[in-house]
Amino acid sequence: MSGVKKMQNYKLTLCYDGTKYRGWQRQGNTPNTIQEKMEYLLSRVLGRETEIAASGRTDAGVHARRQVCSFRAEMDAEPEELLRKLREVLPEDIGAVSLERAEPRFHARLSCREKTYVYRLWTSTEPNVFLRRYTLSCPAPLDEAAMKAAAEALVGRHDFSAFCARSMKKSAVRSIRSIEFQKEGGELRLVFTGDGFLYNMVRILAGTLLEVGAGRLSPGEMPGILASKDRAAAGPCAPAKGLFLWEVSY
Amino acid sequence: MSGVKKMQNYKLTLCYDGTKYRGWQRQGNTPNTIQEKMEYLLSRVLGRETEIAASGRTDAGVHARRQVCSFRAEMDAEPEELLRKLREVLPEDIGAVSLERAEPRFHARLSCREKTYVYRLWTSTEPNVFLRRYTLSCPAPLDEAAMKAAAEALVGRHDFSAFCARSMKKSAVRSIRSIEFQKEGGELRLVFTGDGFLYNMVRILAGTLLEVGAGRLSPGEMPGILASKDRAAAGPCAPAKGLFLWEVSY
Repeated sequence: MSGVKKMQNYKLTLCYDGTKYRGWQRQGNTPNTIQEKMEYLLSRVLGRETEIAASGRTDAGVHARRQVCSFRAEMDAEPEELLRKLREVLPEDIGAVSLERAEPRFHARLSCREKTYVYRLWTSTEPNVFLRRYTLSCPAPLDEAAMKAAAEALVGRHDFSAFCARSMKKSAVRSIRSIEFQKEGGELRLVFTGDGFLYNMVRILAGTLLEVGAGRLSPGEMPGILASKDRAAAGPCAPAKGLFLWEVSY
Repeated sequence: MSGVKKMQNYKLTLCYDGTKYRGWQRQGNTPNTIQEKMEYLLSRVLGRETEIAASGRTDAGVHARRQVCSFRAEMDAEPEELLRKLREVLPEDIGAVSLERAEPRFHARLSCREKTYVYRLWTSTEPNVFLRRYTLSCPAPLDEAAMKAAAEALVGRHDFSAFCARSMKKSAVRSIRSIEFQKEGGELRLVFTGDGFLYNMVRILAGTLLEVGAGRLSPGEMPGILASKDRAAAGPCAPAKGLFLWEVSY
């Protein structure tokens, strides 16, 4: 019998097109989650059952420009070799960006310091068929000055219960460090950076800012919505397809 | 009986994701061409059988950032109204960019002065799942200096029989005004502008330049390939999915 090998911890960075998936998280018998797919493929490549942790779950239909994961393996091969093998078996809508050895205590979710999500809006009346899976189409004019004023009122450390689709057992206090507006041709990007986001929070923030942009809510109402802690006070949950997990910092 | 209405000529600019289509041109009983789809929808909107002409056919799987079409209709409505109605019925992978009245003699193909095609290459080893339908992945290093030298030898007025997948009954002489190389992050774009392109010509030009980039052909061989008029002398036909009809000039 060979001795028990020492387990090595790995940090894996993925990108994925979430269109066809029911989100990141494995859910009992629900097939077609990204976690389930990744654990199946990674177990095949490593030759043993392997669990994988991500920086956080992404909802059904949400994309990841960068999602960071961690897993352990008794692997003698170099990370480059493992990355090459993994790329050979990945489907075309999941990409392995990088793979490296990680400190023993590194955990993709628990070690995460900050995340950036980007909500992509296609604001031109001209159609863009090539971005149809990756942007929400908003051809009606948006009051961007009002949206920016509302975003400023939401930045900071708040109880975001009003922007969460589930009632929280634990604290709903989170810190949003910044909400930036970036223009790229016909596209407007809402860039949210913070220490953590509640269930559906970015999509409800985007949906609320779009209500402000359309003149159905005003920036002055934001403090009251936060204080209400009432989901019904905020705007709707914007569609998943416009949302990207953009970057994860450690 | 109402009198015969005067026919109005229209110029329609489309964009489309060619992934699911068998190219532009209607072909007998072959379903799922863009022309067939457009004629069906336009006939429905206009309430009468309508034929549509494009600046040229695009192959199966080739995309159009801009494809220009012309058609005639006895239409009293303003182009804006017709554009709105057309947008309501178009599938998500075909977009109507603009619609305007045209001179009686305007014809999308016959009046065309110059076309630009772009062949998009993803040259990074990092995967980009969001461009997988719109770029050809070329992770191996390319000798761009050699590709540029080869491109220079191809620019100008030549008989391009060696770069055509079908034997031409008429002249195979065409003028390529320029082949430009554009870098955008991990993407390399080959931009072909000319007065006309033969069947599969841009894809064979791209395939030949890629052979040069990989060191399997040299720039010095280009004049001989042109002179041979032999399809077998040039490189392979690059996959359709990397090719875009980018712009049509009149």
